Amino acid sequence: MFTEYDIIVVGAGHAGCEAAAAAANLGSKVLLITMNMQTIAQMSCNPAMGGVAKGQIVREIDAMGGYSGIVSDKTTIQFRMLNRSKGPAMWSPRAQNDRYKFHEEWRYMLENTPNLDFFQDMVSGLLVNGNTVCGVKTSLGLEIKSKAVVLTNGTFLNGTIHIGEKRFGGGRMGEKGATGLTENLVELGFEAGRMKTGTPPRIDGRSINYSIMEEQQGDENPSRFSYLDFELPTEKRSCYITYTSPEVHDILKEGFDRSPMFTGRIKGLGPRYCPSIEDKINRFAERDRHQIFVEPEGWNTVEVYVNGFSTSLPEDVQYKALTKIQGFENAKFFRPGYAIEYDFFPPTQLNTTLETKLISNLFFAGQINGTTGYEEAAAQGFMAGINAHQKVNELHEFVLSRSEAYIGVLIDDLVTKGTDEPYRMFTSRAEHRLLLRQDNADIRLTKLSHDLGLASAERLQKVEEKIRRSDEIVKFMKGKTVEPTEINSFLEQNGTSQIPQNTKLFNLLARPQINLNDLITAYQPLKDFVNGTGQEIIEQSEIKVKYESYFEKELEMVSKLQRMEDQNINPEFNYDTLVSLSKESREKLKKIKPRTLGQASRISGVSPADISVLMIHLSK
Amino acid sequence: MFTEYDIIVVGAGHAGCEAAAAAANLGSKVLLITMNMQTIAQMSCNPAMGGVAKGQIVREIDAMGGYSGIVSDKTTIQFRMLNRSKGPAMWSPRAQNDRYKFHEEWRYMLENTPNLDFFQDMVSGLLVNGNTVCGVKTSLGLEIKSKAVVLTNGTFLNGTIHIGEKRFGGGRMGEKGATGLTENLVELGFEAGRMKTGTPPRIDGRSINYSIMEEQQGDENPSRFSYLDFELPTEKRSCYITYTSPEVHDILKEGFDRSPMFTGRIKGLGPRYCPSIEDKINRFAERDRHQIFVEPEGWNTVEVYVNGFSTSLPEDVQYKALTKIQGFENAKFFRPGYAIEYDFFPPTQLNTTLETKLISNLFFAGQINGTTGYEEAAAQGFMAGINAHQKVNELHEFVLSRSEAYIGVLIDDLVTKGTDEPYRMFTSRAEHRLLLRQDNADIRLTKLSHDLGLASAERLQKVEEKIRRSDEIVKFMKGKTVEPTEINSFLEQNGTSQIPQNTKLFNLLARPQINLNDLITAYQPLKDFVNGTGQEIIEQSEIKVKYESYFEKELEMVSKLQRMEDQNINPEFNYDTLVSLSKESREKLKKIKPRTLGQASRISGVSPADISVLMIHLSK
Repeated sequence: MFTEYDIIVVGAGHAGCEAAAAAANLGSKVLLITMNMQTIAQMSCNPAMGGVAKGQIVREIDAMGGYSGIVSDKTTIQFRMLNRSKGPAMWSPRAQNDRYKFHEEWRYMLENTPNLDFFQDMVSGLLVNGNTVCGVKTSLGLEIKSKAVVLTNGTFLNGTIHIGEKRFGGGRMGEKGATGLTENLVELGFEAGRMKTGTPPRIDGRSINYSIMEEQQGDENPSRFSYLDFELPTEKRSCYITYTSPEVHDILKEGFDRSPMFTGRIKGLGPRYCPSIEDKINRFAERDRHQIFVEPEGWNTVEVYVNGFSTSLPEDVQYKALTKIQGFENAKFFRPGYAIEYDFFPPTQLNTTLETKLISNLFFAGQINGTTGYEEAAAQGFMAGINAHQKVNELHEFVLSRSEAYIGVLIDDLVTKGTDEPYRMFTSRAEHRLLLRQDNADIRLTKLSHDLGLASAERLQKVEEKIRRSDEIVKFMKGKTVEPTEINSFLEQNGTSQIPQNTKLFNLLARPQINLNDLITAYQPLKDFVNGTGQEIIEQSEIKVKYESYFEKELEMVSKLQRMEDQNINPEFNYDTLVSLSKESREKLKKIKPRTLGQASRISGVSPADISVLMIHLSK
Repeated sequence: MFTEYDIIVVGAGHAGCEAAAAAANLGSKVLLITMNMQTIAQMSCNPAMGGVAKGQIVREIDAMGGYSGIVSDKTTIQFRMLNRSKGPAMWSPRAQNDRYKFHEEWRYMLENTPNLDFFQDMVSGLLVNGNTVCGVKTSLGLEIKSKAVVLTNGTFLNGTIHIGEKRFGGGRMGEKGATGLTENLVELGFEAGRMKTGTPPRIDGRSINYSIMEEQQGDENPSRFSYLDFELPTEKRSCYITYTSPEVHDILKEGFDRSPMFTGRIKGLGPRYCPSIEDKINRFAERDRHQIFVEPEGWNTVEVYVNGFSTSLPEDVQYKALTKIQGFENAKFFRPGYAIEYDFFPPTQLNTTLETKLISNLFFAGQINGTTGYEEAAAQGFMAGINAHQKVNELHEFVLSRSEAYIGVLIDDLVTKGTDEPYRMFTSRAEHRLLLRQDNADIRLTKLSHDLGLASAERLQKVEEKIRRSDEIVKFMKGKTVEPTEINSFLEQNGTSQIPQNTKLFNLLARPQINLNDLITAYQPLKDFVNGTGQEIIEQSEIKVKYESYFEKELEMVSKLQRMEDQNINPEFNYDTLVSLSKESREKLKKIKPRTLGQASRISGVSPADISVLMIHLSK
């Protein structure tokens, strides 16, 4: 019934979809297996992509030819560039999406990807030959052969849903969980753990009084995730902001004795930075209100997502509390919020390619690795899909460094440090975040992906033009001298001091009060020079001028640290031969099997003294 | 959390959606409960609406203000009027639909229906007070009160999916079944049975060789289901026809010893007129091929539905056989076909309003009553929704007679005769099918529904205009005399004899060779008279002229039979007092509790002699 595939991807969420697309686009024959073809790329939680650090990840995926950015752009009902008032390293694109259309667009793009087949079934176990995976077993009793397998099971593995004191099996509300696979992986020697996440109630928007909430519209001139050019939808929707109150908190507390989180029924740890409302009022008892962000689910539905009100309290408590929030007085539930516990596999069991150390050609990506977030999942899936392809074709590994991409930080953190609570990306996790910006993901990554054969020639050409043209503009500004009479009235209007003598354009733009678009309008020679240049290139030129010195310092720092990263360690290295290592270090190093001295230095419990021991040995 | 509703509708398939919409539009406060809000109005089997007798039902639902016709029209990827070459009683509209858009459009329309709320949960039992239902219990442990409940559980009640020797629980492939409710109903005294249906494998259209199949396009000037005016989608898709062969049959037979149908694992009876392929080759052993109808699943998907190849044979047998069919040589499965067994409740336990005899204000509609087909389900849901509203408001019952509508035939058959295999509508089930045409469903039914307060004034106005204007045109043709010189060349061109003397237009049109549109073009005074008249009215005028005498005879027949239908029987009538009734008749009459003498006469086992006994008694 099936020929042998190169790669089988299990699960069709954000991770599975990106994995399947990347591997297929590289030329592998791929089979994507999902429990339900009608829920491909279902947004399980909020109908939004991006945000701080996460938006940068979507840009990185797009820069390398992944689909998440395109799908999001085509289904965006509201777009905002967060932190525009801060430096460009903090700018973070975020979109609200139409939940249905997002799924439809993903499925459409996957169906139009060559080399990619689909099958609806539940994978219940792996086929393993020696220490190498060679296919999957399904609940229909099928055995499907492949050279590699990527597991992206999300919250489905032995999923248990909790609402108050009620508990039942399920992978998402209304959907079956997946059974058998965890047990099979544990038999094979993997260590499994349990995590928890949650989601808020869904509300009938017709029952909400928006007039007493604060409206939040999208950007007037919305940007996008994708570096490609295509038409964006123009119809927009607003979000609304409201707040909890001490009264709401008191009602929620009444349910604490029936909360699965506080009574110990939920064992898995939940996402610290995306906590439930009960967790927030418990941990931040001093705060008398929390923000609630009311998000529309799409263009053509009245369903509404209550961001900030994730909860697994009993549904009567959810209801009683929610209806005390301004604007929700008459709220009608479509369904209550709930928590879900699921199996994950501590990601220290993985190499930096996301291949498992235990079983060759078996890759894990997404929530199965203990992460949270669509973007984190998509990024892992994308990288796992690429590396599965590279592996079965005996090509080089594709690993991004911590100074190249948030994706590099994400995966290095996971496989080096592991995680015991759902891992979410933050800008603060990236020591080189000044370099890892949303505006330059293409500059950082498109060529790397193009060299692999993934990012298209069109993408490469676009980014080369962007680099070339923005360099030209910077060069022009460095060379061009402005006379006081030409510019002083403009400078005064913009609240910055006039120039007493001829000054380089470059130096004027370096002033915080001046932005490039205004300067172009004010100064004819510059206007002539940039005539016809796209806004993205203008922006890139401006960022280069204003932040160049910071970037240069950061790059110096990277190159210093690079020596550690360049120092490779054989994964089969026998740490027992280094008697001067501390016992803890030796154990950690043997477990993690770091690929570089840099990675070894980031393992918690491995001291600088131990790194010196290693460094001395390696330099011999 | 919930206020008391007037009506709770359980299940959001075709039956549940129509029930909820009808009751809400009549002004009842309605709650629609579904296990998954993402699968509202999911087409579980083929992506098509209508067909012979079924298309008439959709027109009837639309004529009364139901939504099925509108939803189908807005998502039609191909439309054909079947049997155009036969008499108008046989004309049957049929549409291929985009499966996704169909669901989306239904959800959109329901969300925009006032008085209608939604909740995602599984109903696990009923709240009953004495002999009257007063709400539902859910799997979340909620108790939701209402004055009436409509159950439309489809194939979900204790659903069991079979593929070859494998068997597992589920309401549809990839979806959970519903548990608890059957047991609760049986405790309440209901008799439950088991039925079976099936569905074919879904195929990757990219793997099909269409070039060696026969293409079937839709009508060039497609009609529609709805009597309302709105823009129809213009982009069309083709279907394709291919055939099984003796080789295919031989392969399928190899799997018979593992077939759940033939080995006795499936106990429920399947739909005789929508049989599985194994059933067809078993029952019609003399036929060396069966037609396979390849239907696209939508505008933007490669998924394909293989109509005619429903099967629950082992998936390896399905695959081996399918790939021997012309065009399917390289077919790739998205998922195999399967059979599903589910609980139903013999519909003789219902009144003609679809209210149960046992529990007041409890209504059943759709597959739970042992029917098959979206149209049959939608029709029952629509009628149950209306009657639930009428009941809780102490208004009159709304029952259609067998001469008024296919819906009348359907429900009368169900509640009078019951069914032990999935009941499907056919034109042959309707003794007055000459009257029950797709062209006059509005004339038959819109006023009835408008009188209830359901069909809109716009609908009534349209149908009144249609009646008035077509009568005018017929009258004009009856009065208008044509001279031989004006028309003879036209008659000759159309292969019918010339007229020797002045003749009424009416008589010319009565000739089978002449159609009204041609006649209008050929004869200026008629052209002037009908100037600006819509095509639907032209068609109606033509049907009146050509078939008037048949219709009149049929109406005479109806009025003769009507005496029996008008003879009401008190449902509490004590048949034990009629000693001359046969024992079998007495038992059947006591069970069915017919509302009229006509209904009593259709109960199988009740003889004409027994009807005479009853008639004599009633006329006393």
